Amino acid sequence: MSQQHMYYLGIDGGGSKCKARLENLQGDCLGEGISGPANPVRGVELAQTSILEAAHLALKDAGLEHLSLNQLYAGMGLAGVNLPKYRQMMAHWQHPFAKMQISTDLHIACLGAHNGEDGAVIITGTGSSGASVVKGNYFEIGGHGFPVGDCGAGAWLGLTAIKQSLKALDDLSTRTPLVDALLARLNCATPQEVVEVIIDGKPAFYAAFAPLIMEFANQGDEMASAIVTEGADYLSCMARRLLQNQPPRLSLIGGLAPLITPWLDADIQARISAPFAAPEVGATLLARQTFPF
Amino acid sequence: MSQQHMYYLGIDGGGSKCKARLENLQGDCLGEGISGPANPVRGVELAQTSILEAAHLALKDAGLEHLSLNQLYAGMGLAGVNLPKYRQMMAHWQHPFAKMQISTDLHIACLGAHNGEDGAVIITGTGSSGASVVKGNYFEIGGHGFPVGDCGAGAWLGLTAIKQSLKALDDLSTRTPLVDALLARLNCATPQEVVEVIIDGKPAFYAAFAPLIMEFANQGDEMASAIVTEGADYLSCMARRLLQNQPPRLSLIGGLAPLITPWLDADIQARISAPFAAPEVGATLLARQTFPF
Repeated sequence: MSQQHMYYLGIDGGGSKCKARLENLQGDCLGEGISGPANPVRGVELAQTSILEAAHLALKDAGLEHLSLNQLYAGMGLAGVNLPKYRQMMAHWQHPFAKMQISTDLHIACLGAHNGEDGAVIITGTGSSGASVVKGNYFEIGGHGFPVGDCGAGAWLGLTAIKQSLKALDDLSTRTPLVDALLARLNCATPQEVVEVIIDGKPAFYAAFAPLIMEFANQGDEMASAIVTEGADYLSCMARRLLQNQPPRLSLIGGLAPLITPWLDADIQARISAPFAAPEVGATLLARQTFPF
Repeated sequence: MSQQHMYYLGIDGGGSKCKARLENLQGDCLGEGISGPANPVRGVELAQTSILEAAHLALKDAGLEHLSLNQLYAGMGLAGVNLPKYRQMMAHWQHPFAKMQISTDLHIACLGAHNGEDGAVIITGTGSSGASVVKGNYFEIGGHGFPVGDCGAGAWLGLTAIKQSLKALDDLSTRTPLVDALLARLNCATPQEVVEVIIDGKPAFYAAFAPLIMEFANQGDEMASAIVTEGADYLSCMARRLLQNQPPRLSLIGGLAPLITPWLDADIQARISAPFAAPEVGATLLARQTFPF
């Protein structure tokens, strides 16, 4: 195929949505598209459908509906493919692209944050995890999922706060204003009512309480401050582990990042730089690095 | 109905099995039966089917298959009915018994442990919770479910140990021999493999690691000791709250009870008495107290 008919497609596939970004060889963004969930752990076929839909939407956005997907060189960062079983299932996909390279959502976030150069990132949104790319070595840490891992992220903050509120409602620890704020938000008065509302609660449910918990922590609420301190200490600890790999830059990204940064250890805060670009840009960089023209 | 045709049925309905005990008016045990899950939170119809099956098995065991269920006065202690919604659903059951009284599994455990007299119990098996019956007042504490509550019980021990092992495998905390023992038990070498094995793990899955964790704690393993100490401190704290109600006796029951008792505060250990009888006996006592002949 002649170079003028080659395009790069970047896919950022997460648990709730899938973003696609179409670029020409020169790196101009031609179009973007957003579709549904693309974490293969929650459904391999659904993830593939979402990826194709986002790709078609990006082509449409670019006014290039006539292009065939087999003219696209795709780089994809997907949640869940840190688990070998799911990476393998996605790798066996009879996909319609010219070529496809799959990595983790974390990897493309790291590539995007540092424009494809060496660096490290910590993501803290609903979950938390960290990665570094240094001299061709890719390293990942954390991100073990709810409820065993992902300390210092939104779902962990919410789960921990509700856990401790139930203990306080049982009169087994000190009740602070945060407890009453959470009860009001849940529209509950008793531990039994709380348990009924939270039963089988998913990470996004718990993460929705994170801004409230951060607000109370910033106001000095004892329970909220202790929880946020524990979470921030974990993130500082993760940052130290990543810095051992000697990345030239470190970025903190994700919805909770701006809120929790002031709670990190001062020396870690001093090392943080703003990310250069978004994960979907990192996905196109992955495609470029893997399939140079 | 003449008294000679009256019988008491005790039902102890839990998440994995349902026990029935048939007694005559004099309190002799005539027969027993065991069937499947009877926690209405996991299925109201299933719970009702299990209760009826256990009752029929108890009649058969007693050689009294010819009796009709409407000759039985039933007392039931069911997991899950501490949640008002599920208690109501069970209360609306068009049941075939002469009469039926429903309470929690905790309540009948407390009645059984103290022969229907005043007292308090802490249950620690897969989950944990506490209750007291003092001068006609019934009080419950804890038991908020996995993963938000039930500290100091088997599922909590397992979840906490796996959480901390993942942190140690990420090199963010000290790796102790417990971590290697858990990896061997899970047949895993990396955090990714652990996450694949534990994904969507239920309480019983995590509780299966409790004996191993207790063994390492007793041998002085640092991680195991810290986890068991935290769990035991919670149970000591719960015991103190129950003792505020001034119960004449306190019993610790459930699969983890004998293992964790030596870890409780000395003054709490000194207050613990062995239970007089099992929860299903407590269920017949509930029936007797509610429907005296």
